[in-house]
Amino acid sequence: MKLYDFKMAPNPRRVRMFLAEKGISYQQAGIEVVNVDIGKGETFSKEFKEISPYGGLPVLELDDGTRISESMAISRYFEELYPETPLMGTDAKSKALIEMWNRRLELGLYTAIAYSFRHGNPMWKPVTNQVAEFAEVSAENADKQIHKLNKHLAGSKYIVGDEFSVADITALCAIDFAKVIKRRIDEEKHPHLARWHKLVSERASSQA
Amino acid sequence: MKLYDFKMAPNPRRVRMFLAEKGISYQQAGIEVVNVDIGKGETFSKEFKEISPYGGLPVLELDDGTRISESMAISRYFEELYPETPLMGTDAKSKALIEMWNRRLELGLYTAIAYSFRHGNPMWKPVTNQVAEFAEVSAENADKQIHKLNKHLAGSKYIVGDEFSVADITALCAIDFAKVIKRRIDEEKHPHLARWHKLVSERASSQA
Repeated sequence: MKLYDFKMAPNPRRVRMFLAEKGISYQQAGIEVVNVDIGKGETFSKEFKEISPYGGLPVLELDDGTRISESMAISRYFEELYPETPLMGTDAKSKALIEMWNRRLELGLYTAIAYSFRHGNPMWKPVTNQVAEFAEVSAENADKQIHKLNKHLAGSKYIVGDEFSVADITALCAIDFAKVIKRRIDEEKHPHLARWHKLVSERASSQA
Repeated sequence: MKLYDFKMAPNPRRVRMFLAEKGISYQQAGIEVVNVDIGKGETFSKEFKEISPYGGLPVLELDDGTRISESMAISRYFEELYPETPLMGTDAKSKALIEMWNRRLELGLYTAIAYSFRHGNPMWKPVTNQVAEFAEVSAENADKQIHKLNKHLAGSKYIVGDEFSVADITALCAIDFAKVIKRRIDEEKHPHLARWHKLVSERASSQA
């Protein structure tokens, strides 16, 4: 199969980290990487629109030609194929709680950062009706979400209790992505977030 | 367990439809419904923030006190407990494709409608830094997403192939919700979407 990937973008990183955490070797799993350079606008091309009609990267192309986009859908595919080292929970309750936190992080933190970037950065102008005021409002929302996450992590080792999960991958990729809107972790203001960030950044998968 | 619910809102409808499709009886499953009136601002209250710190409705409260928010997380909880009549796929590929389409619909169509409503309707003023221009841009995005979905449904009976899934629930609740931004299906312009809409609206679950 083929994995359409780009090293510098946060969503492809989520899938690479997921594979690394599960110990899936690209060679053994038969994954061939195809690089798509977002910086050069390659995701806006006609060719790429054929591969990903909703414009997203990464995309996993199976050997039968089926194309799966959306990081979480690709992650779920591998969670099903390789159930060892579960990252999406093991029973109804843990699966629901991991999905809940993953979504809170996506719909809150991640979306706020992405919207601020998309509406405020010239790179997105060709494909976005940019609203400068919304870029600012979104950056403020990102700050509120970071604050909220810091409070949550005061009482939780990982995003969902004592076990590392896909929600930690989403949170790490979002927090590190926030540099594009000039947000970095402030250890004084967000000690719990800083503690968690150090803990998950030390995992080998964070470099995948 | 308790299900915090509101008849008029699209997200609680997703969970009610999911339960109805799976044939889960509230009485047998031990689900007590607690009505939270979004129209009266009850989701903005301090009491409700305790129940749902990220502000969302519906919320499922388990008998051990665990609270699960996010429609899809609640749906997944019931999918795990009642695996008969699967709505989220049956193998790695179908699970991934349903998740992909569900997310495309959420991140594209649903979000565009919700943002246009949230940034354009006075009801949301107390909890949103409204940007009027973004409400308009989002309504235009909703139109594009509706157009795209119509094209997709030209070649697909349901959202994902020949089987009804949770992605159809998400799409129906989003499309019907679009009336808050004065969007309705135009049979001339969107015949495939209209065909699909009739098909899924005829299911008993659509009235749940």
